[in-house]
Amino acid sequence: MVKQERLIIENVKPQLQSGQFYIKRIVNDVVNITADIFGDGHDIIQAEVQVKHQKAKKGFNVRLSHDMNDVYRGVFQVTEQGFYTYKLVAWVDHGLNWLQGIVKKIDAGNNVKSELTEAEALLSYVIKHAEHQDAKSYLDHLKNVFRDETRYDESCVLVKEKRLHHLFSNIPNRRFAKETQEFKIYVDRTKARFSTWYEFFPRSASEHKNTHGTFKDCERLLGRIQAMGFDTLYFPPIHPIGEVNRKGKNNTTNALPGDSGVPWAIGSRLGGHKSIHPELGSLDDFKSLIHKANAHGIEIAMDIALQAAPDHPYLKEHPEWFKFRPDGTIQYAENPPKKYQDIVNFNFECDAADELWEELLSIGLYWAEQGIRIFRVDNPHTKPYRFWAWFIDEIKKKYPDTIFLSEAFSRPKVMQQLAKQGFNQSYTYFTWRVEKHELIEYVNELTKSDMKEYYRPNFWVNTPDINPYHMHNAPMPMYLIRYALAATLSSNTGVYGPVYEQMVSEPKLPKEEYMDSEKYEVRHWDWTLENKITHVMARINAIRKQNPALQQTNGIEFCGIENDKLIGYAKWNQDKDNLILVVVNLDPFYTQRGMLRLPYEALNLFAGQHVTVHELITGDSYNWYNEWNYVELNPALPFHIFKIEHYNG
Amino acid sequence: MVKQERLIIENVKPQLQSGQFYIKRIVNDVVNITADIFGDGHDIIQAEVQVKHQKAKKGFNVRLSHDMNDVYRGVFQVTEQGFYTYKLVAWVDHGLNWLQGIVKKIDAGNNVKSELTEAEALLSYVIKHAEHQDAKSYLDHLKNVFRDETRYDESCVLVKEKRLHHLFSNIPNRRFAKETQEFKIYVDRTKARFSTWYEFFPRSASEHKNTHGTFKDCERLLGRIQAMGFDTLYFPPIHPIGEVNRKGKNNTTNALPGDSGVPWAIGSRLGGHKSIHPELGSLDDFKSLIHKANAHGIEIAMDIALQAAPDHPYLKEHPEWFKFRPDGTIQYAENPPKKYQDIVNFNFECDAADELWEELLSIGLYWAEQGIRIFRVDNPHTKPYRFWAWFIDEIKKKYPDTIFLSEAFSRPKVMQQLAKQGFNQSYTYFTWRVEKHELIEYVNELTKSDMKEYYRPNFWVNTPDINPYHMHNAPMPMYLIRYALAATLSSNTGVYGPVYEQMVSEPKLPKEEYMDSEKYEVRHWDWTLENKITHVMARINAIRKQNPALQQTNGIEFCGIENDKLIGYAKWNQDKDNLILVVVNLDPFYTQRGMLRLPYEALNLFAGQHVTVHELITGDSYNWYNEWNYVELNPALPFHIFKIEHYNG
Repeated sequence: MVKQERLIIENVKPQLQSGQFYIKRIVNDVVNITADIFGDGHDIIQAEVQVKHQKAKKGFNVRLSHDMNDVYRGVFQVTEQGFYTYKLVAWVDHGLNWLQGIVKKIDAGNNVKSELTEAEALLSYVIKHAEHQDAKSYLDHLKNVFRDETRYDESCVLVKEKRLHHLFSNIPNRRFAKETQEFKIYVDRTKARFSTWYEFFPRSASEHKNTHGTFKDCERLLGRIQAMGFDTLYFPPIHPIGEVNRKGKNNTTNALPGDSGVPWAIGSRLGGHKSIHPELGSLDDFKSLIHKANAHGIEIAMDIALQAAPDHPYLKEHPEWFKFRPDGTIQYAENPPKKYQDIVNFNFECDAADELWEELLSIGLYWAEQGIRIFRVDNPHTKPYRFWAWFIDEIKKKYPDTIFLSEAFSRPKVMQQLAKQGFNQSYTYFTWRVEKHELIEYVNELTKSDMKEYYRPNFWVNTPDINPYHMHNAPMPMYLIRYALAATLSSNTGVYGPVYEQMVSEPKLPKEEYMDSEKYEVRHWDWTLENKITHVMARINAIRKQNPALQQTNGIEFCGIENDKLIGYAKWNQDKDNLILVVVNLDPFYTQRGMLRLPYEALNLFAGQHVTVHELITGDSYNWYNEWNYVELNPALPFHIFKIEHYNG
Repeated sequence: MVKQERLIIENVKPQLQSGQFYIKRIVNDVVNITADIFGDGHDIIQAEVQVKHQKAKKGFNVRLSHDMNDVYRGVFQVTEQGFYTYKLVAWVDHGLNWLQGIVKKIDAGNNVKSELTEAEALLSYVIKHAEHQDAKSYLDHLKNVFRDETRYDESCVLVKEKRLHHLFSNIPNRRFAKETQEFKIYVDRTKARFSTWYEFFPRSASEHKNTHGTFKDCERLLGRIQAMGFDTLYFPPIHPIGEVNRKGKNNTTNALPGDSGVPWAIGSRLGGHKSIHPELGSLDDFKSLIHKANAHGIEIAMDIALQAAPDHPYLKEHPEWFKFRPDGTIQYAENPPKKYQDIVNFNFECDAADELWEELLSIGLYWAEQGIRIFRVDNPHTKPYRFWAWFIDEIKKKYPDTIFLSEAFSRPKVMQQLAKQGFNQSYTYFTWRVEKHELIEYVNELTKSDMKEYYRPNFWVNTPDINPYHMHNAPMPMYLIRYALAATLSSNTGVYGPVYEQMVSEPKLPKEEYMDSEKYEVRHWDWTLENKITHVMARINAIRKQNPALQQTNGIEFCGIENDKLIGYAKWNQDKDNLILVVVNLDPFYTQRGMLRLPYEALNLFAGQHVTVHELITGDSYNWYNEWNYVELNPALPFHIFKIEHYNG
C-alpha cells in the first residue's frame, strides 16, 4: 500500500464471500461485473476487469463503464472449461481529468494558457507508451502546438478533438492504481447446467419376472430412454452388497434367504467400491454399456456412496478408518435411537485421515478411468465439506468434464455449503414444493439470490427415497404437472422413472417411502409400456432440446395471474432471442382459468407491442394484443409451453 | 488447516466486509452476535464468541446458543473505550453427542453396554481439565460405576443426571475446533452517539454592531447555550484568514477593504492551522473559553479544514505539497469551470506524502493538546479515505475521547466510506428529507441496513452552507417541525443557531445559500432574543436528556398513520425500559388528524394491553386501549413527544 493510492473498490459482484468460493459458469456464458468504485474528490476514474484462464499465457482486459452512483459495470465471456481468475483495477485518469477541465474552461471563456503548459508531461507519457507511430506523431504535433503561445487559438480547437480523448483513455497512466484481490470462476461443460436424468435400478432391468437384471438388460433399454429424450442414466450403486446385517424387503432388519439387500450397503467378500456386483455383470459388461449409452447420446451417472457394509474389505484392511468401541464393537451409522446396522461410516476424525482421503479419491479416479464423467454423490453432507472441495478439484484436474450431483436433502445452509465447495449440481426442495407461492418463493431464492452464482439446481419429481405426499395415489394429470414444472423451471431435471411412468405410488406410511421399494428388493417392470406420461415427458424433453431458454434456470420471471391454481413464468436465454412462456394448472382435477400478465420488461417488450405465442405441445398459435391475456387449462393437458414472438402491430 | 476440522462458521453478524472495517459501539452497549454454524452429519456443536479489549490481559468468552436453521446467537457487553476484538470458535462436542445418544437409546429400551465402555475416555478428559475436586470425584465415581457391568441399571440412571451434562458442556474437548478471523469493534464514549450541537461564528458574537466578535464575547453566550440544552458548541475555523484572493460579501471574487474573508480560507502572513485569527483573541483566550465552556457542560468543537489560502505559510515552506504548473502558477481548488481562488488543496499524490501526512496529523494533535476533543472535519471526501483512517486512529491512540464529525454531503457511498474509515459521526441527507416517505425511507436505511453498525448520523436542520429550500421564508411552525424531527429521529443533532432561532432564511437563489452569509462577512445577531423557537428547542433538548430512548438512533420503528402529513415513530433504549412515541405534523399551515397504529411487537406490547401516553411538552396524559389511536396536531405545537407506560387493563 502506498499513501498515494486513493481509490476504493468495493461490493464487487459477482463473487462469493470475499472470493472464498468460486462462482460457476458454463462455456460461453457471460459474466456481468459490477462494483462500487470511487475516489476522494471529483477526479475521472477509469476501471477494468482483468480476466485470465488458468492455462492461458495472457489474459484479457475489459474496460468498465460508470453507470450511476459510483457503480461501474462491465461484461466478459468465458469460453473455455476450467478456472478463470478475474480482478478489478481502477485508476485516476489524469489525462482525461486535464482534458475535461481545460475544455470546460475554454467553453466558459477562461484563458487556459497555464493549463496548456500541463499538457507536455501528460502527452509525453502517452507518446512513450503508444504502439502506433501515427499516434506518436499526432501527439508530438499537439505538443508542439500547445507549446507555441502564438498558436493558442489552434490549441483550444485541438484539445477538443476526439482523437486526443481516445488516446488518453486507451493509453492510461495507471500510477497509484488500486487492485482488488483475485476472484475465481469455474467454467463447466454445458451439461453441468442442462441435463435430463432418468434413474432406474439395473437389477430391475430384466424382461423376465423373478430374474436379476444385468447391464446387458440395460443396453436393451437405451433406445427407449433415448427416445424419451433423456441424456443421463443414473444407477444406484452397482457394487457388491454387504451380506452381514443385510436388510430384507421393506427395510426389515432380518433378510430372508434370497433377499438382495440395499445397493448403498457397499462391500462384501466379493469386493468393495471398485468392484461390481457379480449378478449385474462384469466390468467389461459395464464398459460396454457406457460405450453403447454414449452412442445413444446418453451418459451413465454412477453413485458415489462413501460408506461400507460391515463386511466391506476396508474394515479388515483399514480398521483405523472406522470407530470401534473399547469393547471391540463397531459403531454403525445411527441417528439415535435408530441404527443402520447394514452400514458403517468412515471416521473422518481418525488419525489416518490423509490415507483415508487418498483412498476415497482413488475410487472416483478409478471409475473416471473406466469412462464415467457424471457422479451422483450419496449423502455428501455426512462427510466433511472440505473433503469434497478437495475430492472434486482433484478429479476435475484430470477429468475436467466430470459433473458431481450433490444428493443432500438437508438443511438449507448445508445444501448451499456443498454447492459452494464445488458440487456442479444439487438436489433441491422442489420435490416438496407444491403450492404456487411455495414454488415462486423457492425458485426466486435459487435464481435471484447469491445462490444463482454457485447452486445449480436439479429438480427431481421423485427419487427412490422420496415418494412425496402429493403423489400418493395421485391422478395421472399430477404426473404431467410435476414433470412439466420440474423440466421447465429447472434446466437440470430428473425422474426416478419406472415408478413414475407406471404411476406406482403406494406409500409405506408414515414415511414418504415407496411400498415394496426397489431399495430393498429386485422389482419387475413392464418396460414396453408407453402411456400418456411417457409421451408427454418425451415431448417436453424434445422442447427443452430445441429451446435455449429452457436450457438455463436463472433467466426467469413469474407472471401475475389472478388464480392461485395457475402458475406462469417467462424464461429466456442469455441473448434473449429465445423466449418461452410456461403456464401450468396446479390442479389435477379441474379446469382453471384466469388472466395472465406478460412480464413486459423482462422480455424486452413495450406496452402496446403485439406478441404471437406458439403452443409447442399442440402447435396452436395465439395473437396477444394486451399485457393481460386469458388462459385456461384443463387436466387433460394441464400446461402450456409457449414460444413467444413479438412484433409491432 | 487440519483435515479433521469439520465445522463451518459463516455469515457472522455484525461485522463489515469480512472484518475489513470495525463496527462501532459506545460504552456499555451490547453486541448481538449471530452466525451460521454447522458441520457434516448430526453431531452436537458448541460455539462461543471470544472477546477481548485491546488493553486487557485476558478476554472473556460467551457461549452461543442454537436458534434455528443452523443460526447461533449470543450477546456480550462492551464496557471500556477503545478497540475490542472478537472471534467465533465452534467445536463438535463429543461428550454431549455420546450423552444424547446413549440417553435416547436407553429411553428406546436398547442395551447400551457397549456404549458405556466409551464413557471412560470422555470422562477422563473432563476429569483432567476440571478445576474443582468435587467434580473430579464425582466423575471418578461415574467412571467406576459405568465400568462395572453389575451396576448396569445404576449406570443407566446416572447418565441422565444433569450434572454430567453440565460438566461435558462446560469442560469441552475442543479438538479440531474451528475459529473465525478476528473482528474489531471500536467503543466510543457516550457522546459519540448522543450530542446536541449549536453552531455559530465567533466573529459574530459581539453585542455591538460592526464589531468583530471575540472568544470573550463567546464566553458571555455560554449560559444561554447551556440553558437551551446544547452540549457541543461548534465554531467554523478560527485561524488567520488568507489575504490573497480573499472573497468579498456574498461570495464576490474581489474583496473590498475591510471584508473579513472566508474562515475556511486558512492561513496568511499571520500564521496557519496552528494559529488563531488575531481579531478573535489569543490562544490563552481560546483555552479560557474551552475551560469555561466545560464548566457549563459544553464542549467546543473545532473545524479541521485541510486546505490553504494562497498566502498560507505552507506554500512557501513546503511547495512540494502543492501542485504548481510548469509555468509556476498554482492550481487553485476548482470544479471546472469554477475556481476557488482563495483556496489551494494539498496534493495527496505528491512524492512527499509521508511528510504531508505527518504535518496534517500534527495539526490535530496540537489542538487536542489545547483541550479540544471534538472535531468537525470540513470536506473530508476531498482527501484520501485511508488518510482519515490513519489520522483518526493516531489521534485516538493518544486522546481516545476524541470525536470526529464528517462534513460530507456527497454521494451515498462516499459518505458511507468515510464513516467506515473511522469518523465517529457523520452529516446526513436529513437536511433535505422533507416528505414522510423520504424520512421513513432514509431513517430505515440508516438504522436497519449495515449502516447501523458504523454510521452514526448527526441530523442538522441547517448549516451555513445549506439554507434548504423548504426553509426559505418558511413560517414559524416549520422551524419547530424540523427541529423536533431532527432531535428525536437522531440522537446526534445540530443547528446553525442564530439564523434558525431568528428565522433568517432569505436565500441567495438559485443556490441553497443564505443571503449575506456569515461565511463571507461578520454579522450582528440579537443574542438576547428568546422566542418560541428558543423555548421549544430548549424543551426538546431537556426531554432528550431525560429519556435514554432519544439518546440512541437505531431503536426505532415507524407507525402506520392514515395521513401522509403525519409521521409517527416509537423509539426505545437498549433495555427497552424507556419507550417514546413521537408524532409530528409535517404541515406547517394546517391541523392534521388521523389514526396511529402503535407498533406492539417492537414495544413488547401485546394485543389488548392498555397504555398511558404522557405528553412531555404539555404534560397531558392519555389512556389508549387499542392498537389504533386518534391523534390530532395543529401548527401551534405541531408535534407530540409521548412517554409510553403500559399495564394490563
